[in-house]
Amino acid sequence: MKQTAILLLHCPDQKGIISEVTRFISDNRGNIVYLDQYVDQVDGMFFMRIEWELDGFLIPREKISDYISTLYSQRYQISFSLYFSDKRPRMAIFVSKLSHCLYDLLARWKSGEWDVDIPCIVSNHEDMRYVAEQFGIPYYVFSINKDHSNKAEVEAAEMELLRKEGVTFIVLARYMQILSDEMIAAYPHHIINIHHSFLPAFIGAKPYHQAYERGVKIIGATSHYVTAELDAGPIIEQDVTRITHKDTPESLVLKGRDLEKIVLSRAVSKHIERKILTYKNKTIIFS
Amino acid sequence: MKQTAILLLHCPDQKGIISEVTRFISDNRGNIVYLDQYVDQVDGMFFMRIEWELDGFLIPREKISDYISTLYSQRYQISFSLYFSDKRPRMAIFVSKLSHCLYDLLARWKSGEWDVDIPCIVSNHEDMRYVAEQFGIPYYVFSINKDHSNKAEVEAAEMELLRKEGVTFIVLARYMQILSDEMIAAYPHHIINIHHSFLPAFIGAKPYHQAYERGVKIIGATSHYVTAELDAGPIIEQDVTRITHKDTPESLVLKGRDLEKIVLSRAVSKHIERKILTYKNKTIIFS
Amino acid sequence: MKQTAILLLHCPDQKGIISEVTRFISDNRGNIVYLDQYVDQVDGMFFMRIEWELDGFLIPREKISDYISTLYSQRYQISFSLYFSDKRPRMAIFVSKLSHCLYDLLARWKSGEWDVDIPCIVSNHEDMRYVAEQFGIPYYVFSINKDHSNKAEVEAAEMELLRKEGVTFIVLARYMQILSDEMIAAYPHHIINIHHSFLPAFIGAKPYHQAYERGVKIIGATSHYVTAELDAGPIIEQDVTRITHKDTPESLVLKGRDLEKIVLSRAVSKHIERKILTYKNKTIIFS
Amino acid sequence: MKQTAILLLHCPDQKGIISEVTRFISDNRGNIVYLDQYVDQVDGMFFMRIEWELDGFLIPREKISDYISTLYSQRYQISFSLYFSDKRPRMAIFVSKLSHCLYDLLARWKSGEWDVDIPCIVSNHEDMRYVAEQFGIPYYVFSINKDHSNKAEVEAAEMELLRKEGVTFIVLARYMQILSDEMIAAYPHHIINIHHSFLPAFIGAKPYHQAYERGVKIIGATSHYVTAELDAGPIIEQDVTRITHKDTPESLVLKGRDLEKIVLSRAVSKHIERKILTYKNKTIIFS
Repeated sequence: MKQTAILLLHCPDQKGIISEVTRFISDNRGNIVYLDQYVDQVDGMFFMRIEWELDGFLIPREKISDYISTLYSQRYQISFSLYFSDKRPRMAIFVSKLSHCLYDLLARWKSGEWDVDIPCIVSNHEDMRYVAEQFGIPYYVFSINKDHSNKAEVEAAEMELLRKEGVTFIVLARYMQILSDEMIAAYPHHIINIHHSFLPAFIGAKPYHQAYERGVKIIGATSHYVTAELDAGPIIEQDVTRITHKDTPESLVLKGRDLEKIVLSRAVSKHIERKILTYKNKTIIFS
Repeated sequence: MKQTAILLLHCPDQKGIISEVTRFISDNRGNIVYLDQYVDQVDGMFFMRIEWELDGFLIPREKISDYISTLYSQRYQISFSLYFSDKRPRMAIFVSKLSHCLYDLLARWKSGEWDVDIPCIVSNHEDMRYVAEQFGIPYYVFSINKDHSNKAEVEAAEMELLRKEGVTFIVLARYMQILSDEMIAAYPHHIINIHHSFLPAFIGAKPYHQAYERGVKIIGATSHYVTAELDAGPIIEQDVTRITHKDTPESLVLKGRDLEKIVLSRAVSKHIERKILTYKNKTIIFS
Repeated sequence: MKQTAILLLHCPDQKGIISEVTRFISDNRGNIVYLDQYVDQVDGMFFMRIEWELDGFLIPREKISDYISTLYSQRYQISFSLYFSDKRPRMAIFVSKLSHCLYDLLARWKSGEWDVDIPCIVSNHEDMRYVAEQFGIPYYVFSINKDHSNKAEVEAAEMELLRKEGVTFIVLARYMQILSDEMIAAYPHHIINIHHSFLPAFIGAKPYHQAYERGVKIIGATSHYVTAELDAGPIIEQDVTRITHKDTPESLVLKGRDLEKIVLSRAVSKHIERKILTYKNKTIIFS
Repeated sequence: MKQTAILLLHCPDQKGIISEVTRFISDNRGNIVYLDQYVDQVDGMFFMRIEWELDGFLIPREKISDYISTLYSQRYQISFSLYFSDKRPRMAIFVSKLSHCLYDLLARWKSGEWDVDIPCIVSNHEDMRYVAEQFGIPYYVFSINKDHSNKAEVEAAEMELLRKEGVTFIVLARYMQILSDEMIAAYPHHIINIHHSFLPAFIGAKPYHQAYERGVKIIGATSHYVTAELDAGPIIEQDVTRITHKDTPESLVLKGRDLEKIVLSRAVSKHIERKILTYKNKTIIFS
């Protein structure tokens, strides 16, 4: 695999923007291996993901960001993020007592499906330590008191751990705690949650029981970036499965588990591949 | 096709209830051609749909209901409905300005897919008259004033028409009016609506625009029996389709149409076949 | 709606091809309203659909094709098709005895969902004449003898009709005849068929009965361009629905109808919008 | 959880069969906690799964089978299987080099989702030993020579292991070997395979590459009981996922993995719950 640069950008749509960007790379002898773009006709915004080989590219990698800023950012009002394929994202997993999402994440990582490092697993309970140990990943328990009196300290300790471990994004794999606004602000659109309903239906606690009570014929799961408002952040991925009147709350929980783990892992895949751009509380998912 | 009797019943679950009912039919020389039952373990309720040939059945058809009442209703606290296959349901369609659901209903009826009569189409606008005329079905326009000042009169006239035409159930095929509680009460769990969202998400007006704003990755449609509370009646059928960030409110409307018509027609099919039982604001859909 | 030009092209992938094409349009003052491209990394091929407003475009519409040929075709080995949004495609529908796909097509056309003309409906039977008459479209019956002795004459007459009516593509809406190679060759990748199975499973006759015999748990429908080999042309769209052991061949036929009409109409939509490119017996479907 | 008896039976359909069976249980003071039945109208066959509490049942558990044989088997031509909920099935997993299905099975088992024992994992390669060790399950490698010269010996050794470990059914979790007819005959409809296509499409090797070549728009996975004919046994479960022209053979393999593991685990769930009946190369899956 050759090393590549990945550029995610958005700006007001304007004539010639694609040819400008592609020419910048071509003229500097970058071989483009991926390009996907999309114009939001409603808002008049342009979104692009472009990836090119660094080998032979005339601009040194440490200067690329500067060049884009100087040449294009102001002129086109471009916002952009630049990544390099050899700089692997570092993922922290937060978990409470359920193993299905955790196992799904770790099994993919272990089999080499994902280009990611997992330096730590964080929990408010001891229950999942055995899974972390099966996979040889450090497991940290930070207990939050029932009255939440120590929540600020606990989060400070968690943040310190994340900093020390160079964590670039967090996955809440059925983590049954609400994060503080400060913690969310420290990882803006870099905390992925899985909610066990087809959002925006059944926000909050016990969505399968809510679904059972309402008598729906289909249940779902939703992965989204965490924002300050509960279950209201940009949706990354959703999926559903058919149920019938024969299902009980318990069978919904069981059926839902398969949805949850697949939907969460699909979202994590896209994040690791740097294929998600967020804009106005929505996601653009590149192909 | 031989004539059959169809019995839908529910009662508290108790030992021997299936054998009791099946024996009643077998002992009276009824040939059972369909049986589906279901026990709600949460509520301890028993639900059953059983169908048998009238030919050779020892109890005259006009006495069957009496016999069931006398022999079983009190003893087992059974609630039941009895239908005969040769008594076709009579369906009124209410429509406003959109043709896709209306065409789908009429095309099925015309091709003989459904054992139903359609004596009338009712609307608050002239727009769909040409469709009714294509299929030779009487079309009645009842205009409701903007200030709803004539709503009571209009509904009285509609009810009179429905009575005159012997209508047994109503289908709201994208009918953009809210029915009064009196009208709903006259057809309890016999008015089928199609709501263009995956309920309970996006209740009320402009659900596709709500879905666009929220940035969901899947949209849906829901058919349900109308009750006094808006979009909150027993759900009969739902289905969904995947969307992406590339969809606009307009493309959602287009994609949604295919969902709406199929989901509505599936619900109508089940109703015509007498395969729906309602209980506690939910539906039991027999196979 | 402003008039637009639509360019579909493919060529070997090469540096700078996107910027070359977009610059050609921008430099000549065309406002690009749609661009979607895709690189087949396996075959090293580049595919693009680009649409721009003709208003203000410096090259007269009748010269655009020439310019593209001269400037780019040889240099980049580009194959392309050029369409104009104000030149509506003309669709002939071929049908035998089943109405569900026919109604679905005509209802969409009648409601204005599609930018298409339907000058004629062709059949080998009288059965569907009433539907054509409901929609006021000329209906032509061409009877093929059981021994197929008049097949060549019949197809010649059909071809003459299609020429006279300026038909640009054909939709086989459950047409139960196999077209001759000559007829297929006259409309290369411009005849859309609906096959009532999830191809390549259950090629040929009675696919629902085949599916029933095999005991599958899901059935499907497939729309594809017709080629000389039966049911083997480029697939445009597929969809599936879940079934159970309770389904009979008859219930599969009924459930399948809903799939067939939706899958066929989705394919026809994409064809009308000029969003399909075929390459190596596959389709590229632009967004 | 109370201990239960589970009876799966089928016989020619006949009047009174349900009431006969339910009365047998009720009269002997068995509390029925589950009943699902189905009549195949095409073949005139009756299928039933019935489950009742052993506590208080008048017939001793070791005599139940005898009683059913004597009282009903001959009279109604009943074929039946009788299970007890406290006799857990014992599952052997066969695996080659891929971990995704194996992890999915073991994670469910470890979390207590399944009432099953897994005494051994069998492989033709060392690759998956680390997974077995993570979960503390004995791992046996039986190497088959490239020329298959030792296949008979190897299978004899495998069969000996299975016998010793009291294995009641086998799961082929992407096991890349074809079992001999003898081995299949020893576990009739008790070996579950996962095939990575939507059968009967793409039988045999490299189905994702076949799917890529054919240009399908949906891929699938199929779990089925193994029979002597390759990929032709009774289908238990299937599922599909949408793909586009942008997918490569490699991305199909990745997307397919999620299907494979979920479809296989759903089939294994149903088998463990004794909810599958096979008849004429099809499965009846009870609810």
